[in-house]
Amino acid sequence: MKSQFKAVSGSVVAPRGFRASGVFCDIKRLGTGKGSQKGQKRDLALIVSDAPCAVAGLFTTNQTCAAPVKVCLERVKGGRAQAVVVNSGNANACTGSQGLKDAREMARLTEQVLHLPAGMVLVGSTGRIGVAMPMDQVGAGIRQAAAELGGARADADHAVEAIMTSDTRPKQVAVEFKLGGRTVRLGGMCKGAGMIHPGMSPTGQRPASLPLHATMLAFLTTDAAIDPKVLQRCLTEAVAQSFNRITVDGDMSTNDTVLLLANGRSGNAKLGARSAELGTFAAALNHVCLELAKMIVRDGEGVHRVVTVRVQGARTVQDADAAARAVANSALVKTSWHGGDPNWGRIIDAVGYSAAKVVESKVDIGYSRPGSSKVLWSLKRGQPTQATFRELCAAVAPKEFDLHIQLNLGRAGAVMYAADLTEEYVDFNKGDVSEPGSLGG
Amino acid sequence: MKSQFKAVSGSVVAPRGFRASGVFCDIKRLGTGKGSQKGQKRDLALIVSDAPCAVAGLFTTNQTCAAPVKVCLERVKGGRAQAVVVNSGNANACTGSQGLKDAREMARLTEQVLHLPAGMVLVGSTGRIGVAMPMDQVGAGIRQAAAELGGARADADHAVEAIMTSDTRPKQVAVEFKLGGRTVRLGGMCKGAGMIHPGMSPTGQRPASLPLHATMLAFLTTDAAIDPKVLQRCLTEAVAQSFNRITVDGDMSTNDTVLLLANGRSGNAKLGARSAELGTFAAALNHVCLELAKMIVRDGEGVHRVVTVRVQGARTVQDADAAARAVANSALVKTSWHGGDPNWGRIIDAVGYSAAKVVESKVDIGYSRPGSSKVLWSLKRGQPTQATFRELCAAVAPKEFDLHIQLNLGRAGAVMYAADLTEEYVDFNKGDVSEPGSLGG
Repeated sequence: MKSQFKAVSGSVVAPRGFRASGVFCDIKRLGTGKGSQKGQKRDLALIVSDAPCAVAGLFTTNQTCAAPVKVCLERVKGGRAQAVVVNSGNANACTGSQGLKDAREMARLTEQVLHLPAGMVLVGSTGRIGVAMPMDQVGAGIRQAAAELGGARADADHAVEAIMTSDTRPKQVAVEFKLGGRTVRLGGMCKGAGMIHPGMSPTGQRPASLPLHATMLAFLTTDAAIDPKVLQRCLTEAVAQSFNRITVDGDMSTNDTVLLLANGRSGNAKLGARSAELGTFAAALNHVCLELAKMIVRDGEGVHRVVTVRVQGARTVQDADAAARAVANSALVKTSWHGGDPNWGRIIDAVGYSAAKVVESKVDIGYSRPGSSKVLWSLKRGQPTQATFRELCAAVAPKEFDLHIQLNLGRAGAVMYAADLTEEYVDFNKGDVSEPGSLGG
Repeated sequence: MKSQFKAVSGSVVAPRGFRASGVFCDIKRLGTGKGSQKGQKRDLALIVSDAPCAVAGLFTTNQTCAAPVKVCLERVKGGRAQAVVVNSGNANACTGSQGLKDAREMARLTEQVLHLPAGMVLVGSTGRIGVAMPMDQVGAGIRQAAAELGGARADADHAVEAIMTSDTRPKQVAVEFKLGGRTVRLGGMCKGAGMIHPGMSPTGQRPASLPLHATMLAFLTTDAAIDPKVLQRCLTEAVAQSFNRITVDGDMSTNDTVLLLANGRSGNAKLGARSAELGTFAAALNHVCLELAKMIVRDGEGVHRVVTVRVQGARTVQDADAAARAVANSALVKTSWHGGDPNWGRIIDAVGYSAAKVVESKVDIGYSRPGSSKVLWSLKRGQPTQATFRELCAAVAPKEFDLHIQLNLGRAGAVMYAADLTEEYVDFNKGDVSEPGSLGG
């Protein structure tokens, strides 16, 4: 799959016709009441297309969703947009009617400065919850960001820096592929770190099948031409297998947002529901979303180990998902991963208390290198195998490994990209009570 | 409520006609391959009535339930028992058909040495998962424990010591009250510490209404005379408001068990479904179960703070329960408690992603001293109050406080007894890979 797509640089400005910028406008200072940060980390980003785009989006299903999510929900429905304004340092969540006004004002200011029609700008925010947006700073930031827009790799780097919160490194990717002889590009950037267990839907409404539990933000651009309804369907499917399958701490954020803008500048024949080449576009999108999603887990707060939990043999997809999520979010399983302890007792315990149908005497549990089918089984049909403790410890020692859980009850499967639970996570999140405010959205 | 019942010493031997013992028989050594523990901590307990008892029990709804749970499920149905044998150091969970044979053999050996009819002994186990029971040691322990049975306070102390695993202190209580002029006693002991989020039912089957997620073991005795069906109903109700409402880490164990033996030695008129005095007995049982349940949370692994989460104003009891559990099990909320940070953003986030219906603009969040109705509100109708950060920090500084969440949507409420998440919890549970085996059941 990976070899199908050529990696290119430039993230969200890799596709033709997109420009970006990231500036420092001191949002965090006002959020925390503290002096500006060392090095003045950028905190406001713009991503702008030269032409109107088809747009698709997925949003947190948290019932206390943030104001920018509400604004995007209204605007993505129309299927058209041309720019995104994003800030870090303040989530604009739990800020009531003033928050909603502020999010709309962020969009209006951006439209004004970029000379775009009303309704063509989307908004994203991440940072502290329950603190009013410092709109003077935000306004100045938008003007500065508009002045600095560019299509160079450095411009994308500035944008991705500006959306980071507790992230220790930028997360971006772009690929190039062919659609009907035309070269198409798809790029994306995201942020994560904590409050990561997304359960996003296109409407913000929670389908029965959707998981209950990041602020994670992801912004994707492409120069493919595609119908907005088809774009939404492709993005919904891609997110279901990527961002909605990651967990750092099991806490779903108020602000989770994925947006994809497609401006058609590659000149490909517009993709519709029945286009022969839709599969290629969808595969590229799945690839980019999964790469970005995995970056979020790897850079999760205090994360030392990343474990791909692969459940197979469940009666239903819902069962497979429930079993995978129970294991991926179990404090005891996650601490054992941190310790390098191949503790299958905690794993079968978590599977057993999940909503999935499980028969202890049928469960297999094993480990492999990432993506490998060569599994070292620790448990077969509910009983320990001949694998030695030393061998099992070696299997869970790498920074990344796959955990295989075969329920042997049916044919359904599910995957979760999960992280260990470390002292650093606790230390980071226990907070600094000398600094009021609610980090997280 | 508390003043209604006189506290007495002696735990499970406080009621007439009960004897207990706790001995060291070296179960842990064989479980871990290590030398015996310093001080040779007791690891096998007996609780025995001089006469046959009515019995009631609740058991883990984990589908990978341990062998002793299976044996108890078979035997409690009959409503009669006379003794309980319990070991720590080995959970006898995920031990297949041999494990079930071993659990039955523990009961049979106890029946033999105590000269009891077949079927009158119940079994409990806690400790490592997936390790065969060291039956030679267990057999020797049962014989020694039978020889040491006594009705003194020290005997109960030995029994409670023998069921401890990661507990740092013994947990026991006993009360005295009057039923129709007769003095009745009710005593209990329990253990907890990790893998604590019980969801027990009388049948081990999970009702739709039951929470999904300890090893906790609790053994209760009373000299009340009571019909076994009525006893079961009282215990089911008491556990629903106590043991099934605690969480340390959100992980439900394979071995959770609560057993209650009633031998009628107080000479009260046998309690039936319509007895005028049933309410008094039920209230005493509720009191004892809640006291024991709270002891488990206070002594949870690495726990520094205990928070009673009180949700009110939910549309339904299910909604109230879902909201309370989401908050009580949120890694971000629990780490903020550890830090003494009154982070209402994380609380409203967790309420928002719960399965409960929530309207952000209606939510109130506040703090009080344990059991007090004098609440310092941090949030009213979704908006921060005038309470200062310093005031709120002071409210969450004590080792125990109540968190009040008023949803303002209905009249239903729920309570959870929860703990903070600390570096010590992670450090303790990341395991020692020099020591194979799966602690936890």
